[in-house]
Amino acid sequence: MSRTLVAKHVELAIEQGLAVEGELGTSTGGRAPRLVEFNVKNGYLLLAQLGATGLSVAIADLRGNIGDVTSIPIDVADGPEVVLKEVELAFKKLKSQMKAILWGIGIGLPGPVEFSTGLPMSPPIMPGWDRSLVREQFMKTFSAPVWVDNDVNLMALGEYSLNQNSKNQELIYIKIGSGIGGGIISKGVLHRGAQGCAGDIGHIAVGEPTNIICRCGNVGCLEAVAGGAALAREASNAASNALSPYLQQQLEKNGLVTGTDVTQGALRGDNWCVDAITGAGQQIGRILATLVNFHNPSVIVIGGGVSSAGNLLLASIRQTVYSRSLPLATRDLEIRLGDTGDSSGLRGAAEMVMSELFSPSILLQWVSDGSPRLPIVYQQDVLA
Amino acid sequence: MSRTLVAKHVELAIEQGLAVEGELGTSTGGRAPRLVEFNVKNGYLLLAQLGATGLSVAIADLRGNIGDVTSIPIDVADGPEVVLKEVELAFKKLKSQMKAILWGIGIGLPGPVEFSTGLPMSPPIMPGWDRSLVREQFMKTFSAPVWVDNDVNLMALGEYSLNQNSKNQELIYIKIGSGIGGGIISKGVLHRGAQGCAGDIGHIAVGEPTNIICRCGNVGCLEAVAGGAALAREASNAASNALSPYLQQQLEKNGLVTGTDVTQGALRGDNWCVDAITGAGQQIGRILATLVNFHNPSVIVIGGGVSSAGNLLLASIRQTVYSRSLPLATRDLEIRLGDTGDSSGLRGAAEMVMSELFSPSILLQWVSDGSPRLPIVYQQDVLA
Repeated sequence: MSRTLVAKHVELAIEQGLAVEGELGTSTGGRAPRLVEFNVKNGYLLLAQLGATGLSVAIADLRGNIGDVTSIPIDVADGPEVVLKEVELAFKKLKSQMKAILWGIGIGLPGPVEFSTGLPMSPPIMPGWDRSLVREQFMKTFSAPVWVDNDVNLMALGEYSLNQNSKNQELIYIKIGSGIGGGIISKGVLHRGAQGCAGDIGHIAVGEPTNIICRCGNVGCLEAVAGGAALAREASNAASNALSPYLQQQLEKNGLVTGTDVTQGALRGDNWCVDAITGAGQQIGRILATLVNFHNPSVIVIGGGVSSAGNLLLASIRQTVYSRSLPLATRDLEIRLGDTGDSSGLRGAAEMVMSELFSPSILLQWVSDGSPRLPIVYQQDVLA
Repeated sequence: MSRTLVAKHVELAIEQGLAVEGELGTSTGGRAPRLVEFNVKNGYLLLAQLGATGLSVAIADLRGNIGDVTSIPIDVADGPEVVLKEVELAFKKLKSQMKAILWGIGIGLPGPVEFSTGLPMSPPIMPGWDRSLVREQFMKTFSAPVWVDNDVNLMALGEYSLNQNSKNQELIYIKIGSGIGGGIISKGVLHRGAQGCAGDIGHIAVGEPTNIICRCGNVGCLEAVAGGAALAREASNAASNALSPYLQQQLEKNGLVTGTDVTQGALRGDNWCVDAITGAGQQIGRILATLVNFHNPSVIVIGGGVSSAGNLLLASIRQTVYSRSLPLATRDLEIRLGDTGDSSGLRGAAEMVMSELFSPSILLQWVSDGSPRLPIVYQQDVLA
């Protein structure tokens, strides 16, 4: 495109209230460039992050800033009809408060998603969701473009978007919740793999012989021995057999014990809980050591509910990874805690929608259509 | 750059004999584009692939076609001074037969390499090579740009360059030679990782308890139980203890047994050898199942000397991977044999040099310098 044509489009976008002129940049020799950016007041995104038992929704502006997060209890096993109705209601409520234009919708699901189509693919903990038309439903209801991805992919993206420096370009995010999943950032971009299920580490076989059957049907999967549901199952036994004073107390109080009870017990120094968390960390660490040798990441972020056990879990994972990975691969490797809630997932959903909206092919389409719904960003000096 | 300026540069390149006008392409509406390509007769590349005990060198033209391959026995443990002298001599011999301009040199080393600097980094089987100035030495001697990478990375690149279609965009190459290594193609580009040592799967711990010490100092590494050297060690015992008629015969004939004897014995149906190859395939398959869940590749290529055991090894690897990976990740997964020699490595070295020579930053430099040593490729119609 010629400089003149671009200038005309920018002028048009400013006239329509889609773009605003920003600050003057630093001159690189010639005229100082002026940043033209989207009018963030003009547009917003709707975001949802679905888990096994909860749903978080929020609005984001076009810079990716997330508003207040609303959390709603759901049971993902109720199937797409029931659950997506909840999402729709929550979105409509948020939308009714907004005067600006809805530019896009981003949704994270707790299972494998074929990114190109937005279809959930045989998700193990989501009965009835296989190939359900999530994208189509929301596109129709809200007349906006929709992107769907795996929840942990979005968490990885959200962590990366906080610090898009070279140190984070090779980032692995591990969510240790009820199950265990992973998301991979490579060269600063999500690595989805051939079928979009890359990072699905919960069903990797742990080395040790075990007869624990996983919900996927296989034996000895990582999440079946080290995930939150596995911890809760072991904790129930421990409480019933009086192996842990803290868990026994919780069982008497609540009638059941959960994964959260184990992390809380560990933080209070209960021996059984400390051992359980340390053991889970070792199992996870052994798989991560393999992945470190293979992928050579610069950062591993540990998130999800079980990560609220904090430094105890982290120390156990670190120790195992450092002892079983190549020295060169661990030389500058950082292993740290992420957040335990849904904020990185929602931030990642905003990133996903923005990077798709602002991808070169869509930008070109916008420029040639003059369509007012799709945006464009550039600095005037690159047009010289 | 303006169209006029580009046309001027193209004209200059043709005048200097660097570029030639190719065939007319298909019109996309306007004037039919004419392909301007390098004059492949004007330039060539020098390539070397180093192994533990052998060196292969070849010339390639600027389309990546490899000439005759010369193989020279070396011992990489003799250190860089001795070994690189051999490479230099072989290169000088090839160079003396060429009238064209040497545009670049590509070298593969059997250990981790920091790609940005070309330095070998604590390579376990290359004593004395740590941080040795391979690139600098060849740049000085041959006055040409030099790139150095890990040998298995180049094999992966070579396999991908044969079939650059979407099916191969997520490719993992596994070399099972004396040791075991891996190379990863992701989105059609080599994944090197944060320190350039991605794919180094030989030192991943196998799940089973074992007391076999690896040459890296750790216990139970994959290559210490399933590589060619491990097979040779076990085969020696089998031959001495009369467990295998074939190996016993080879021991009597040659005074020792090698990994090649095991693959040959397996191909002839010797029971012990068949078991050994099948067992190695299972060990490798178990690690690969983990990597398939994590990375979700579309193709796994098995190469290196031990892969000459062919379908027996392949069947054992396939069976293990398919039984222990996620259904979605294996739905369209292809696991096949590569070549057992150095041709894919040399082809990969040519790919590496060409993609670095023709990278946008170097192209821009060439265009602004008018430097006659660095090339540029484009189609005239993209300049409109």
